[in-house]
Amino acid sequence: MALLMENQFRELPSDKAVDTKLFLNSVSYLPPFFDCLGSKVFAPIKSDISGNITKIRSVYDKDPVKYATLQQILEAEKEAHGTDWPKVGATLALLWLKRGLRFIQILLQSLADGEKDENHPNLIRVNITKAYDHALKKYHGWLVQKIFKAALLASPYKSDFIKALSKGQEVTEEDCMVCVRQFLVNYTATVDAIYEMYTTLNAELEYTV
Amino acid sequence: MALLMENQFRELPSDKAVDTKLFLNSVSYLPPFFDCLGSKVFAPIKSDISGNITKIRSVYDKDPVKYATLQQILEAEKEAHGTDWPKVGATLALLWLKRGLRFIQILLQSLADGEKDENHPNLIRVNITKAYDHALKKYHGWLVQKIFKAALLASPYKSDFIKALSKGQEVTEEDCMVCVRQFLVNYTATVDAIYEMYTTLNAELEYTV
Ligand SMILES: CCCCCCCCCCCCC/C=C/[C@@H](O)[C@H](CO[C@@H]1O[C@H](CO)[C@H](O)[C@H](OS(=O)(=O)O)[C@H]1O)NC(=O)CCCCCCCCCCC
Ligand SMILES: CCCCCCCCCCCCC/C=C/[C@@H](O)[C@H](CO[C@@H]1O[C@H](CO)[C@H](O)[C@H](OS(=O)(=O)O)[C@H]1O)NC(=O)CCCCCCCCCCC
Repeated sequence: MALLMENQFRELPSDKAVDTKLFLNSVSYLPPFFDCLGSKVFAPIKSDISGNITKIRSVYDKDPVKYATLQQILEAEKEAHGTDWPKVGATLALLWLKRGLRFIQILLQSLADGEKDENHPNLIRVNITKAYDHALKKYHGWLVQKIFKAALLASPYKSDFIKALSKGQEVTEEDCMVCVRQFLVNYTATVDAIYEMYTTLNAELEYTV
Repeated sequence: MALLMENQFRELPSDKAVDTKLFLNSVSYLPPFFDCLGSKVFAPIKSDISGNITKIRSVYDKDPVKYATLQQILEAEKEAHGTDWPKVGATLALLWLKRGLRFIQILLQSLADGEKDENHPNLIRVNITKAYDHALKKYHGWLVQKIFKAALLASPYKSDFIKALSKGQEVTEEDCMVCVRQFLVNYTATVDAIYEMYTTLNAELEYTV
């Protein structure tokens, strides 16, 4: 779990506003998460998510005071872009990024909860599939869904995945899961807050790719 | 064919040396070729090829005199990198780039030759599959091959592909193919010369991704 523990997400304030700078700093540690899946076929996913982060950062950097929270970014872009919004700018980048974050969250939660395929306890396909079904499937057309199914076959053994998460250190599954649960507390709260914000601001979109 | 005709490849000199600067200029027009396939799922391919071009250009820019021809780049890198070569630097980037170029060449040649699936004359799957089988399949493991098969289902109708190649102008298939044949003359000679160079310098690699 070294990978995730190095940069824990912060506890949210009571108004659940997400500080842009702290958020960008924490999520910037996540793209290497996809390397833990072990195969280079996941490189396009890593680069899609890195692209989202770069897009949000480039908006933030233009005016760190004006864009101090994620909510301020969405509101300013709504104001600026008229009917193009929300399919535009950092609003669109965060719309997709949050789905990737949710995918990671559900996958880790499912592992931490001990969900497994009893016939193949060292596979994580059931956990990946659960995360995909909840976070992404409905936003993917039949072709990307088909590619997902193929890519799923390249998913690593649980033991290798845990080793990669722990940056190659030999830790027991249970020790790793203690850290995962710890990481998930603030992480899940942050992802939930972002989803709530998209609902409140009516910024969610249903189109498929 | 506007897309390809805008930047034709140069005729090779008699020693078949490929001028790096002219080559980089001509290939830089090719990544948009993958947009002609119509689906965003091809974006990772476009970015892989763009990455190869960027890598070669960054080596060239370090010393345009020393790296005036592609052959000079390979020889200098062989000298500099010892046993890591050829799986390194611009040598590796061009190794993969040439396969993408061969893929495009065979696909266009097959269309220009009128090869088609008689039962589905407006599909180009047979042409794409031929190009893939010759240029790439043996360098792809089972998973990427499987993803290729899925992606193939997203390949465009011939008429749409031709329209995209012609940048949206309405041209007849036959007019388009006249230009394609024209384009293929120097293009094929250049790709052949690069393949020959890899054979002569013993720079080809057989590993799969
Ligand atoms: C030789 C044969 C080659 C054939 C080529 C086939 C290539 C197959 C390509 C597969 C797709 C890769 C995943 C990327 C999918 C992306 O299309 C989507 C939407 O991506 C968004 O699109 C927006 C515009 O609509 C903006 O551009 C966003 O960009 S913006 O920043 O500019 O606003 C961008 O993120 N992102 C997604 O679906 C997000 C994916 C998140 C991570 C998912 C985890 C899944 C893990 C699976 C584990 C088993
Ligand atoms: C939500 C679910 C998501 C699941 C995610 C699945 C994602 C699937 C990804 C599919 C793969 C995309 C294609 C890229 C493949 C690449 O892996 C290979 C090797 O790529 C090379 O690798 C080297 C190291 O070994 C260097 O890094 C090279 O880089 S270097 O410059 O640094 O040296 C790099 O080009 N290139 C290739 O195979 C080249 C491909 C050429 C074009 C092929 C045309 C095919 C057209 C097909 C039309 C139907």
